Amino acid sequence: MTAKILPISGFPEYLPAGKEVERQVIDALRATFELHGFAGISTRSMEPLEQLSRKGEITKEVYVVRRLHATADAADEMGLHFDLTVPFARYVLENAGRLEFPFRRYQIQPAWRGERPQEGRYREFTQADIDVVGQSELALHHDGEIVMVMLEALGVLHDKFGLPTSTVRVNNRKLAQGFYQGLGIDDPLGVIQAVDKLDKIGEAGVRALLDAQGCDKAQVAAILALAGIRTDDDSFVARVRALGVGNELLDQGIDELAALFDAVSGRVVVDLSVARGLDYYTGSVFEVGLDGLPSLGTVAAGGRYDSLATDGNKTYPGVGISFGVTRVLAPLIGRGTLTASRPVPSAVLVAVDDEASRCVANEVARALRANAVACEVSPGAPAYGKQIKFADRRCIPFVWFGGIAGQVKDIRSGEQVDADATIWTPPPTDARPVIVPVD
Amino acid sequence: MTAKILPISGFPEYLPAGKEVERQVIDALRATFELHGFAGISTRSMEPLEQLSRKGEITKEVYVVRRLHATADAADEMGLHFDLTVPFARYVLENAGRLEFPFRRYQIQPAWRGERPQEGRYREFTQADIDVVGQSELALHHDGEIVMVMLEALGVLHDKFGLPTSTVRVNNRKLAQGFYQGLGIDDPLGVIQAVDKLDKIGEAGVRALLDAQGCDKAQVAAILALAGIRTDDDSFVARVRALGVGNELLDQGIDELAALFDAVSGRVVVDLSVARGLDYYTGSVFEVGLDGLPSLGTVAAGGRYDSLATDGNKTYPGVGISFGVTRVLAPLIGRGTLTASRPVPSAVLVAVDDEASRCVANEVARALRANAVACEVSPGAPAYGKQIKFADRRCIPFVWFGGIAGQVKDIRSGEQVDADATIWTPPPTDARPVIVPVD
Repeated sequence: MTAKILPISGFPEYLPAGKEVERQVIDALRATFELHGFAGISTRSMEPLEQLSRKGEITKEVYVVRRLHATADAADEMGLHFDLTVPFARYVLENAGRLEFPFRRYQIQPAWRGERPQEGRYREFTQADIDVVGQSELALHHDGEIVMVMLEALGVLHDKFGLPTSTVRVNNRKLAQGFYQGLGIDDPLGVIQAVDKLDKIGEAGVRALLDAQGCDKAQVAAILALAGIRTDDDSFVARVRALGVGNELLDQGIDELAALFDAVSGRVVVDLSVARGLDYYTGSVFEVGLDGLPSLGTVAAGGRYDSLATDGNKTYPGVGISFGVTRVLAPLIGRGTLTASRPVPSAVLVAVDDEASRCVANEVARALRANAVACEVSPGAPAYGKQIKFADRRCIPFVWFGGIAGQVKDIRSGEQVDADATIWTPPPTDARPVIVPVD
Repeated sequence: MTAKILPISGFPEYLPAGKEVERQVIDALRATFELHGFAGISTRSMEPLEQLSRKGEITKEVYVVRRLHATADAADEMGLHFDLTVPFARYVLENAGRLEFPFRRYQIQPAWRGERPQEGRYREFTQADIDVVGQSELALHHDGEIVMVMLEALGVLHDKFGLPTSTVRVNNRKLAQGFYQGLGIDDPLGVIQAVDKLDKIGEAGVRALLDAQGCDKAQVAAILALAGIRTDDDSFVARVRALGVGNELLDQGIDELAALFDAVSGRVVVDLSVARGLDYYTGSVFEVGLDGLPSLGTVAAGGRYDSLATDGNKTYPGVGISFGVTRVLAPLIGRGTLTASRPVPSAVLVAVDDEASRCVANEVARALRANAVACEVSPGAPAYGKQIKFADRRCIPFVWFGGIAGQVKDIRSGEQVDADATIWTPPPTDARPVIVPVD
């Protein structure tokens, strides 16, 4: 078939070396999540459109899916999920009777948003989510646990692949909402959504939004004073108190935030400007950035929701966080900051003397693979020099000559030694492609 | 948010134990493909609709995707890919200058077809493809290689997970086409598509189709005689010759098929009824079934295409095969034939004495994880008996009591021993969930 070359903005694809980076990063995330007892699940890519439309602000970005030749009476309009939380909520309800609660799950899958393309925005992107969901109740200590697991996962990415260190900023919805209520504000959610824009539109912009919402001067000043509190110790408690607002929900929020800070041994920054615009958070909220890469913005975010889902009878409170795999990797892979030591798994190219003896090379390859040595047989049988060049172009470090009792050449050093294919293995550092860390 | 329980036919989802099966199967496929030097890639889920419409018979099943609030002038109509071959062809063209040929890639991803739901048909399904693609030329020995790699992968699934053994049936398009041309048939492709239906509609049905295409009695008899040849040795050559049809393309096809049979050391069945309906195959064609599970039908299929893609200047011949991961696993997981020994990664539940000492349990968990022992801390601190029951419901084999110098209980045997969390590890068979093979 003939295909036309047509890259599409917002749909990042990687060359094999970039794909290897993504794969190793996802494997590392998976391993960390599993060490903490999170079970992997996947959900289908589509949900009924009405389920996806509940989150008003995202509605316009949903991709609708229909069969090309759907009949007019086809009622089941579907959409591609735009996050992994909505499908997870549905999965929990659908399988509640067959899951043990608290249910700990991780989910690493693509999601889709039909956004106008811009730097750092993707229409197809992979997310890595962890959540703990209870039935009717979920202990508060899971909030700290979720933060610690994500911190550990990001720590592994730092240690193994040289990704920057990360900073988790935390806040609490009850604290913010109680504070605004204590100020006598009727629509605390409107204020939360205004404060959420602080990074984008600055203090003047937020001030204008609050004015428009009918906040008076003193209220605006107090709101901005609260949003200005950022501490890396527990002094935020005293600073909030000093603002002189009294409210029961506020007290509860302060207690929860202080407990979270304590539970994570102070490994977060308390930042009372963290708002998270989505309306289902009801307690802790988290935002994670990579140190020294502010251009990437928030790379992970999440929080506590008292009711992820409800079937009318029972509610399912949860706490979770979502890491933007594509958001972090696509720019780093795209500009070559992060790559793999070679674009192929093969550690060895087995040379072929001539087509008649290809079966000898195949036998060598079989022997090497029996010891888990990834290898490929030369596709042709030109002069050895050409076969070495072929390996070199693929960054395959070793070329094998002869039969089982043959010779292996490290084409980087030029060193060539006798070797037995039934026992030879490359040095561990050459066994698989290695991720080349950020400088 | 409130979600409605709404399972959707054709979109299989697994409980955690089933997902673990799929994951381990995919990891095993991946490992085998990489041992043979295939590099992993992923492509975006969508392609321009006109690219997807080229394969006429599948067109009607394409899922069209558009932004919910797309403006009327939005021209870029997209569709979800229905296989991994069309996007791979586009990927090769788009990146030809940055790939080394022959390019060996594997790709394990979902694809979508808006089919009428029926047993064994899925609207969302995962495929595992391997292909070798050359630039302008590709040696014939890769046909045998592709068969051998898939046989090895299926052998691993048999050995590790107890999946049935598999049988690869092979044929050659040139042989069939040359034979039909030699019979004086104008539309060999029509005959191939008729013969392709032999399994479904039987000999009488195919006979009727051929009649309708204008084949005379002698032609129909010869066509069915050819399709009846099935050998597990190279006697097919003599049997084809015995049908007395002479044609150059036929000769070439016989030679290629004999060479393939030889290259795979006879580990296939030559079955001249294998047709593969798709029109881009030009040489070898393969179909794989699982022995003793004929109800699953063809679980892998592929072949040689002289021009997977062309940019006008260069063509990219290839050979590949696609394994239907969902097609095989969804029925086996669904009816519980294949499951995991536990639905959670955790090998250990760390008991909590009381909420005040949760930090002690956290420290034990940290020590265990440092040795790669997957574990979780009890979500509550009820009586030990209840915590053991909690572990039991999740099939977690071990419960830890006390601090780093504590005790560990195998809740299956009831045996409880002193243990040091900084050095204790479970028996290897308990370290991770194990796939419980088909009986």
